[in-house]
Amino acid sequence: MSTILLVIAGWDPEAWLARFRALGGGREVRLWPDVGDPANIDYACVWKPPAGLFATLPCLRAIFSLGAGVDHLIEDVALPAVPIVRIVDSNLTRRMTEYVVLHVLLHHRRMKLYEAQQHARQWRDDIERPASEVRVGILGMGVLGRAAAEALVQIGFRVAGWSRSRKSIPGVETFAGKTELRRFLARTDILVCMLPLTPATRGLLSYDLFRGLARDGVLGAPALINAGRGGLQVEVDILRALDDGTLIGASLDVFETEPLPPASPFWTHAKVYVTPHNAAQSDPQALVANVLAQIERHERGLPLEHIIDRKLGY
Amino acid sequence: MSTILLVIAGWDPEAWLARFRALGGGREVRLWPDVGDPANIDYACVWKPPAGLFATLPCLRAIFSLGAGVDHLIEDVALPAVPIVRIVDSNLTRRMTEYVVLHVLLHHRRMKLYEAQQHARQWRDDIERPASEVRVGILGMGVLGRAAAEALVQIGFRVAGWSRSRKSIPGVETFAGKTELRRFLARTDILVCMLPLTPATRGLLSYDLFRGLARDGVLGAPALINAGRGGLQVEVDILRALDDGTLIGASLDVFETEPLPPASPFWTHAKVYVTPHNAAQSDPQALVANVLAQIERHERGLPLEHIIDRKLGY
Repeated sequence: MSTILLVIAGWDPEAWLARFRALGGGREVRLWPDVGDPANIDYACVWKPPAGLFATLPCLRAIFSLGAGVDHLIEDVALPAVPIVRIVDSNLTRRMTEYVVLHVLLHHRRMKLYEAQQHARQWRDDIERPASEVRVGILGMGVLGRAAAEALVQIGFRVAGWSRSRKSIPGVETFAGKTELRRFLARTDILVCMLPLTPATRGLLSYDLFRGLARDGVLGAPALINAGRGGLQVEVDILRALDDGTLIGASLDVFETEPLPPASPFWTHAKVYVTPHNAAQSDPQALVANVLAQIERHERGLPLEHIIDRKLGY
Repeated sequence: MSTILLVIAGWDPEAWLARFRALGGGREVRLWPDVGDPANIDYACVWKPPAGLFATLPCLRAIFSLGAGVDHLIEDVALPAVPIVRIVDSNLTRRMTEYVVLHVLLHHRRMKLYEAQQHARQWRDDIERPASEVRVGILGMGVLGRAAAEALVQIGFRVAGWSRSRKSIPGVETFAGKTELRRFLARTDILVCMLPLTPATRGLLSYDLFRGLARDGVLGAPALINAGRGGLQVEVDILRALDDGTLIGASLDVFETEPLPPASPFWTHAKVYVTPHNAAQSDPQALVANVLAQIERHERGLPLEHIIDRKLGY
């Protein structure tokens, strides 16, 4: 029977451990740092593992990320030559879609304005534009981006997606690669970022990029939603763009430093929604069964799904 | 050529007048109170007409409401025996769906909590429940209720609908009539009201009704969204239910008195979203063509669509 090592930093590991043991089918489940004999460990299921850990596990057969994104482990220079598996789970995908739909609607329906009016006891209903006049652009058209795009199309938005390689999605205009990024930005009123964090995407959400967004939209100025990783954004550039009107508002679920430091100007910025990196929480109730099903596939000799490409970094 | 009388109170009529004249195909369009010879008026297109107006128009052939709902005119005791036509327009329907999806997600994703935490510079991510564990109940399953229900099902909520007569909608549990109201409420965590205002529905949203909502939901207590009419709600009951924990929050787009008086406790209530009756604004750009198409149908001898039932009041 194989042995699973659970390595979790930043989250409470107890619910994960209990769930792995309940569904593990007799496999031994150890919780880091109580590794025991490192030579026993067959599978590592991890969130933010310490650098160098994997090099100490000589018989490791695969590594599973417990959250969307693998940037938390891919930078370990001592990664062994075993498959690294992303989590793709309908529960995680639906949560991300909820977050994206909510925040696109918050900007589209100008809720910051109406909350300020409420605070001031003002009854004023300006003309609202229909969703069909608002162009949402999604950066990153993997499983999460595609699901969000489809939900937004249903509600009536004009949706486009940008990704490294070209995708084809009914009702969604798709752009691909660096050469088409400028055209994608120029037609976008609400920019939603769901990219993985890689050396190629770090710092992409910069002032220059914001200047490339549509200047002729019905919202007055474009809005930014980042549900990817904090490393994708340049926070001083977001503040500058909000303050000079390049951006009309922002929803940020992720930050350069998490938890967001108390001194950050985002906390009290009138144009910003701050959420504590919970757009799509990893729920052990839903995700452990998914990981164990992959381990069972592997042990039956079937290929693992959603193995990352190390060169691309996701 | 027929003559149209435009009667608009509470909105700026200029955009409506311009649109009717631009698309009117040579019909004369008069703006109340400049009625001219009342015997010339064939069609009245109205929002909140003064009581008794219709009795002064001897040759009237039909009355068109310019907003969703006809309660603003149906109480006129001197209504002539001509068809009264509701507006059913995809633009209006989509706007209402946007509002409902936004506010259901605001309560589901506990944005009041996260906005309070943001204000307090607190980074805390409690476990969020997936939409599949949240039961939305829609009161009123006409065109608007059905469209909202379908959008919420797509996002993953468990959706039920209640209406006077039974409906059948894929993926939606339906309840009908007074005898099934209690069961409908008992399985509902987020109650969305889109009923028409009639003698049978006035004051329906009462403390007693709120007490009948689910007590075992994942949100802690049920939430209320009223996008129908202010006359459907008993405002002292909503306040009592919010204050004693019977309701966890409310989104109110409509009020007993509009504009909402400055002294109303809703303005500053920490658990309430107030919007200025703009869930689904009547947009002349979209709606005038719809009304004129109906007038053309009528003049070609075809039946008018969406004629209200005077006994039911909608």
